[in-house]
Amino acid sequence: MTPAPSASSVPSVPSVRVVAAVDIGGTLTKAALVDEGLLEVTRVSVPTPPDVAHDLGAHVSAVVDRLLVGATAAGRAVEAVGCGVVVPGLVDERAGVGLLSVNLGWRDLPIGDLVGVATGLPTVVGHDVRAGLVAETRLGAARGARHALFVPLGTGIAGALMVDGHVLTGGGWAGELGHVPVDPDGPPCPCGATGCLEVLASASAVSRAYRERTGRPAEAREVAARVEAGEPDAVAVWSVAVSALARAVLATVTITGVDLVLVGGGLAQSGETLLAPLRREIDARRTFQRPPRVVHAALGDRAGCLGAACLAWDAARSAVAVG
Amino acid sequence: MTPAPSASSVPSVPSVRVVAAVDIGGTLTKAALVDEGLLEVTRVSVPTPPDVAHDLGAHVSAVVDRLLVGATAAGRAVEAVGCGVVVPGLVDERAGVGLLSVNLGWRDLPIGDLVGVATGLPTVVGHDVRAGLVAETRLGAARGARHALFVPLGTGIAGALMVDGHVLTGGGWAGELGHVPVDPDGPPCPCGATGCLEVLASASAVSRAYRERTGRPAEAREVAARVEAGEPDAVAVWSVAVSALARAVLATVTITGVDLVLVGGGLAQSGETLLAPLRREIDARRTFQRPPRVVHAALGDRAGCLGAACLAWDAARSAVAVG
Repeated sequence: MTPAPSASSVPSVPSVRVVAAVDIGGTLTKAALVDEGLLEVTRVSVPTPPDVAHDLGAHVSAVVDRLLVGATAAGRAVEAVGCGVVVPGLVDERAGVGLLSVNLGWRDLPIGDLVGVATGLPTVVGHDVRAGLVAETRLGAARGARHALFVPLGTGIAGALMVDGHVLTGGGWAGELGHVPVDPDGPPCPCGATGCLEVLASASAVSRAYRERTGRPAEAREVAARVEAGEPDAVAVWSVAVSALARAVLATVTITGVDLVLVGGGLAQSGETLLAPLRREIDARRTFQRPPRVVHAALGDRAGCLGAACLAWDAARSAVAVG
Repeated sequence: MTPAPSASSVPSVPSVRVVAAVDIGGTLTKAALVDEGLLEVTRVSVPTPPDVAHDLGAHVSAVVDRLLVGATAAGRAVEAVGCGVVVPGLVDERAGVGLLSVNLGWRDLPIGDLVGVATGLPTVVGHDVRAGLVAETRLGAARGARHALFVPLGTGIAGALMVDGHVLTGGGWAGELGHVPVDPDGPPCPCGATGCLEVLASASAVSRAYRERTGRPAEAREVAARVEAGEPDAVAVWSVAVSALARAVLATVTITGVDLVLVGGGLAQSGETLLAPLRREIDARRTFQRPPRVVHAALGDRAGCLGAACLAWDAARSAVAVG
């Protein structure tokens, strides 16, 4: 009988400990294997299935398998030690439950349990924007900050707040910046109220307002380009959005004391076309409040996935500390 | 030579460990010696000197001496282990600095250092309303809560927020609820903006609005009594205040996710005359947000002083743990 080779006699590739980070959006699921230094070993992006709510565990498990296969194909030996999943909507991070996502079609979905069983990995659940803010504090535009508002302006508007170094969850209900009322004479909001920030300053709102004013369709980024070219209709539409955003940001500054504002999402890709007038308008409306620093968020559409990695690594470390 | 009696041969009254808790208001300084169970051993209330900013240490030291004399006179042997001082305005708790109080006339006053030197006690500094909320969470109407807004309606309006069990400081800038803009067509605010909550729903604002409408002077509590009697002018003035408060509370709920609102201060002494229509108006304006529980704060004008005691005891215990 030939003795089995001892482990020490086989030359082995040292494996890298990673977490699987998964950001489930309405259109795409972005995922990566991320090492403890928060570097991506491999990443993948796949469409989110329309019926994802019916088998979330299988979807995430398939994505994680693709990541692991991808790492192996690239000659990287990895050991997955946990999984972080972030989703939009109302999320109770402590319970690991998606309370409500209208876009993804779930209510009270036990995401942590479903993904944990399907992947066999210790799983933590987060909110996409709050997790994105965590990533911005460690890798991005909020490094060194103790207080910050992160507000991505996309199809809708969500927000995340850090105060005193702590990202607010409010049992899943914190940061609904899109539904701060800013104009009692504004358009109706699908939430049932009138003049919410989201119907005035989201990328969709800007596109819609431009079309209503001119009869011509235009994506928000095209409106931004026309603002830069000085087109009066585009400038008028843009100033409504900037003013609404300034009012919501200033209300948030007044209530929470944040002094750093990270603007992200599609509308912020216009850079200073948005940020310069936004700073001016906040400054014009501000009285005793500290002037917040208003900057472009740094991590773009990777923020959610990197945030999921941050949450998963935090959990993995605290499990070691406890265990 | 007669030997001195040994300590053990003298019958001794066991002394109670206390902190000195001092709440410095624009009119009165309220203070107490408070034991570790948060019971007051003795209390005193003295006018705040108009020039308190010039010798804050001497003022607090004199108040603490009066408390100690009072305890001795009542036959209570006490050992003071720390001091908590709470003040209005902008306060940086971590630095122990009063950043700004217009009423008390200071800017960047190193309260912790001044009081520590004058009293010889380890001293912590807090904000009166934030400390009041801490007391409400331990002794009052917010026991067991993880999220809460505390909003005392007095001459002005300040606010304090707890989210995820953490009272927000924002470097001293959190909770300026009085300056949330609620009505662009409202009266001018001394801060320089228009239609802030404070000029619409403080006790002073209600009194002023009634006088402007009727030509007759009335304190806010008299206006409340006339609301209960069904006087149309009083009802009209009251509804403006209630509506403004509902809008500011709902904006705060939307941004922070709090689900408990403690209303305090002079205007809240009218009880359900204020709270019942406030609940109705919040409910009418609310869409997807959780319905906040709206209640009367429990500790009245003792909240600040008891909050100062909470802060001082927390500091004393953590000093023991560290030391």
